[in-house]
Amino acid sequence: MTTHTTLKLNGERLLRQLRELGEIGADPDAGGRTRIALSDDEKAGRDRVVAWMRELDLDVTIDRIGNVFGTLRADTQDADDRAHRPLMLGSHIDTVRNAGALDGCYGVLAGLAVVRAFREAGVKPRRAITVGAFTNEEGVRYQPDMMGSLVYAGGLAVDEALATRGIDGTRLGDELARIGYAGDMEPGAILPHEYVELHIEQGPILEAENVRIGVVENLQGISWQRVTVQGSANHAGTTPTHLRHDAGWVAAAVATFLRELAVQSGTTLATIGMLNIEPNVINVIPRKAVFTVDLRDPDEARLQEAERRLADFLVESAQREGVRIETERLVRFEPVVFDAALLDVIEASAARLGFSHRRMTSGAGHDAQMIARIAPSAMIFVPSRGGISHNPREHTDDDQLIDGANVLLDVVVKRVALA
Amino acid sequence: MTTHTTLKLNGERLLRQLRELGEIGADPDAGGRTRIALSDDEKAGRDRVVAWMRELDLDVTIDRIGNVFGTLRADTQDADDRAHRPLMLGSHIDTVRNAGALDGCYGVLAGLAVVRAFREAGVKPRRAITVGAFTNEEGVRYQPDMMGSLVYAGGLAVDEALATRGIDGTRLGDELARIGYAGDMEPGAILPHEYVELHIEQGPILEAENVRIGVVENLQGISWQRVTVQGSANHAGTTPTHLRHDAGWVAAAVATFLRELAVQSGTTLATIGMLNIEPNVINVIPRKAVFTVDLRDPDEARLQEAERRLADFLVESAQREGVRIETERLVRFEPVVFDAALLDVIEASAARLGFSHRRMTSGAGHDAQMIARIAPSAMIFVPSRGGISHNPREHTDDDQLIDGANVLLDVVVKRVALA
Repeated sequence: MTTHTTLKLNGERLLRQLRELGEIGADPDAGGRTRIALSDDEKAGRDRVVAWMRELDLDVTIDRIGNVFGTLRADTQDADDRAHRPLMLGSHIDTVRNAGALDGCYGVLAGLAVVRAFREAGVKPRRAITVGAFTNEEGVRYQPDMMGSLVYAGGLAVDEALATRGIDGTRLGDELARIGYAGDMEPGAILPHEYVELHIEQGPILEAENVRIGVVENLQGISWQRVTVQGSANHAGTTPTHLRHDAGWVAAAVATFLRELAVQSGTTLATIGMLNIEPNVINVIPRKAVFTVDLRDPDEARLQEAERRLADFLVESAQREGVRIETERLVRFEPVVFDAALLDVIEASAARLGFSHRRMTSGAGHDAQMIARIAPSAMIFVPSRGGISHNPREHTDDDQLIDGANVLLDVVVKRVALA
Repeated sequence: MTTHTTLKLNGERLLRQLRELGEIGADPDAGGRTRIALSDDEKAGRDRVVAWMRELDLDVTIDRIGNVFGTLRADTQDADDRAHRPLMLGSHIDTVRNAGALDGCYGVLAGLAVVRAFREAGVKPRRAITVGAFTNEEGVRYQPDMMGSLVYAGGLAVDEALATRGIDGTRLGDELARIGYAGDMEPGAILPHEYVELHIEQGPILEAENVRIGVVENLQGISWQRVTVQGSANHAGTTPTHLRHDAGWVAAAVATFLRELAVQSGTTLATIGMLNIEPNVINVIPRKAVFTVDLRDPDEARLQEAERRLADFLVESAQREGVRIETERLVRFEPVVFDAALLDVIEASAARLGFSHRRMTSGAGHDAQMIARIAPSAMIFVPSRGGISHNPREHTDDDQLIDGANVLLDVVVKRVALA
């Protein structure tokens, strides 16, 4: 067995591929790109990634939900576990509207860069390496998000996922067939031995603390609810304060309550991102307010506590203001704890390469949280300038991108050894 | 001189005219009606009112802003002040979208009922009586509201008003000419000796206190502002609370602050009726919030105090959350105090007719507040069920409507005497 110092990551090639993929679906004005899952532009992105997989002579497989896998075979017999249960790397290449060029693309293309390092050195891994690009991570057109990895991990039946109706009325399965990515493989058939996902942080912590590498030890639980407040419209000039049933004020009171809850907790994050009031007229007390609540916490008990306190506050507010309040659960994922052994390896690789590093929590959802249901998993983060993502201004310095990919390569080499 | 007991108000006729006018511009489904100023339906309403004025043999005059006046001549020489400076009654017949049948129509048609009582008794007033229907009180299509009376009182140049562009892009003067109501008279040419406006309360107080007649002694000052908060959009899952610049949260904090201010003050009313946030996405911290603030108080000093406290709170909030806040003044009217002598007369009439009554403040704006700039003015209120207005469910009992008109008749008789 050779030492892994013989493997060299081609950073320039990785950066070039990020730029090339980022030009597919480019927005006319805003400097971003839009590759909504299963659109023509996303098909073009898939085609490009598959072409790059074939350039590397990978075995390309598509599953029934459209997840794309490129596998570098191991130097082992077919019967060996190391052939059939690969180390999996990956992420996704679909985007939100007017997105940056990194996000999921970075994890997929860094996976290809790792495989390329093997190819260019002419060495084979002892365990197969599979690079995956999961379908519809963003959930812009079809709900839920992280759908491809969720189906892959058995959390959603593939036929149910294929029957999903999009916000444009289309059926996901039809669109998948239309773009030519309705594969034959059953989701989950390539069972990963381990899974590692490299990603930009999408938050401000690494930059703020001037740390190079994030060793992501867990991923927050997410609770999304839609809250509907039904009050009474009335004249703003003639209705005394104590006779009001102001749905807009109740929404505002919830927002200020949640801010206090978040500050007190220290770990819970709370956001009202969407809010609409009716009739939305300057001199009419709002009759109705519909808003969403996004609660997150790395600890399930604390997340449940936040949900309970919110529910209590809604009951109190309904009584105090004389309004009706209904809530609807939209999304609920428990926190995910990543694999301790993988975390140690990532930390050791970052240290060996001389990069400052810290354990941290992922605030966003990622495919890794789904794959963690079926295989030991972990994530590696690189800094995001200003914490900005889902935006053309999303940015990570080139050398930071290459450093992250080098940590990934180092981890892979340690886990698959060389032939 | 005869006593005014010879005059009898025809209540059935008044109710029938209210129903007939309420059928013009009827909405297909909702049970309301829509006669936006200077629309075809509002022209039909004007035509009906003018026809009723002619039935009563009134002198009909239209001014350049489209205000319609019907005058019952006095039994005096042309040179007499009582011929040229009439007692004016009135209100408006334009409506909001999907309105009730009363609102301004009640004041106009009750004015005609008063004049009819003179006609039917065959007596002439010592002072002329003019019934006015002012243009565009509601301000739905063209801003500002109360436009016809504002122009009439000299608060807005007629040419400027005619040049107003509507929300549909039309020019007010063109629409006025199109419907045939661009008159010749200069606004203000018929200078009222006094002005009395009968109106539904549009608030819940008379009903809640089981009082028949509101003697409106003043009208709240109104302060409308548009507030724009510019924060930063960021990921709801990855951005720590202390690094947020949440424009939506600032809007919510303002709403809860204003509620506290209103409760503490006891007289100030504060409403956020319109609020829009961007990008309005469930997992994105709002980048921008635009909302309106409606502040009202019958006392100018207290209204200014509320404005000052709001301004201070906005400065503090901008600093605390790291956002930019801009405010734009949309409307500002000082409180109006109605004429003490007229109030005494109204109160005496209500008492003489055996109706419970109370002094009160008008929370809404009315044409009377504009005419008060050029003539002693006052208003009479009747109860609104549930305080509801600008809504098909707007309702005042028939006998309450007739009682209010009888108070108006009694006041008119006292002010103009009989021939």
